[in-house]
Amino acid sequence: MAVKTKGQGGISGATIDRLPLYFRTLRLVQDEGRDIISSDELGRRLGITPEQIRKDLASFGQFGKKGVGYYVNELKHNVGNILGLDNHWNIAVVGIGHLGAALANYQNFVALGFNLVALFDQDPHVIGTVVNHVKVEDSRRIREIVRQRKIHIGIIAVPAAFAQGVADELVEAGVQGIWNFAPIKMQVPETMHIVNEDLSIGLSSLSYYLTRT
Amino acid sequence: MAVKTKGQGGISGATIDRLPLYFRTLRLVQDEGRDIISSDELGRRLGITPEQIRKDLASFGQFGKKGVGYYVNELKHNVGNILGLDNHWNIAVVGIGHLGAALANYQNFVALGFNLVALFDQDPHVIGTVVNHVKVEDSRRIREIVRQRKIHIGIIAVPAAFAQGVADELVEAGVQGIWNFAPIKMQVPETMHIVNEDLSIGLSSLSYYLTRT
Repeated sequence: MAVKTKGQGGISGATIDRLPLYFRTLRLVQDEGRDIISSDELGRRLGITPEQIRKDLASFGQFGKKGVGYYVNELKHNVGNILGLDNHWNIAVVGIGHLGAALANYQNFVALGFNLVALFDQDPHVIGTVVNHVKVEDSRRIREIVRQRKIHIGIIAVPAAFAQGVADELVEAGVQGIWNFAPIKMQVPETMHIVNEDLSIGLSSLSYYLTRT
Repeated sequence: MAVKTKGQGGISGATIDRLPLYFRTLRLVQDEGRDIISSDELGRRLGITPEQIRKDLASFGQFGKKGVGYYVNELKHNVGNILGLDNHWNIAVVGIGHLGAALANYQNFVALGFNLVALFDQDPHVIGTVVNHVKVEDSRRIREIVRQRKIHIGIIAVPAAFAQGVADELVEAGVQGIWNFAPIKMQVPETMHIVNEDLSIGLSSLSYYLTRT
């Protein structure tokens, strides 16, 4: 569960969070060789009401044709465009423990157009190993390599105690955004985009729903 | 980023998603030996407006004292109660690849009161190994062990192609909730609580914000 502080341009954070779901489902529909999909069917596949889907997509422009549905390729292209996926951001993962390795291997990132260009760790036993075709570099080289490889987004998967230090280095190296998995509130410049991922939220909200069964 | 289909009892899904953040922050404040915290300070620590915090907490009852603030222990206790964390749910992880191992090792779950009681995998090289003091069992024993160990929540961290099969077994074994990391839309009975975790949402929404810098 990602926690952002705000939406932007009048579009709610909840809408923005649904766009990747639309994108993923449209990719599947495209793979099935379909050209058109209705908001009803999109809704069924996503567990979202068709009204919500129409409302979400209408806030970005006119993508559907009344009585026909959405043109799959066009809509997928446009949603990807809105999400900025055609920027093909270069990403790096810092901290190649189990979580970092899982992130480095996550196939969906490639499918979404992200390029994994660097991995970092401080453990001499991990440095030099290869995960998903990328060699793990020494964390002390973050600044140098972030610049060299033009890394846009740094993913922090180190233990909480090291996370702020890594964030400082990433910021100084010039990344534009940070995706943080460490359970701390980072201090970063106001201009830095940061998305905090907190895995305990999903499980806690499940607990909430189970309690009310 | 967790995706639920609905909130419940008039409380929005967004409010429920913030409760674990409150809980975590209150735990930290408690560890610092503090007795009282204002909604202003809670807000600063969480990056949420004090108004939002007061609104969220008011929807569950009266926890603060005007001009004084919130009593930390009481509020933490109550938020944990609302989240149902005092049920001390028994959880199991199915699929002990990098992601499953990361989840099995996630310290925050323990801190939130969840009990990790079983791990499952189908790989003979993984079965019998021990992760975070729990032995990995053969996935073929899911039904038997879920019943034996009274597992409430099954966490699915297997590849997409195996996820529905695992969900079917967990449902048949009698779990009450599923936390699913596989990027597919599960078919489960209407009565089953399921939270789908989609890691590509966090990164995609970061892409969205970067594009608009």
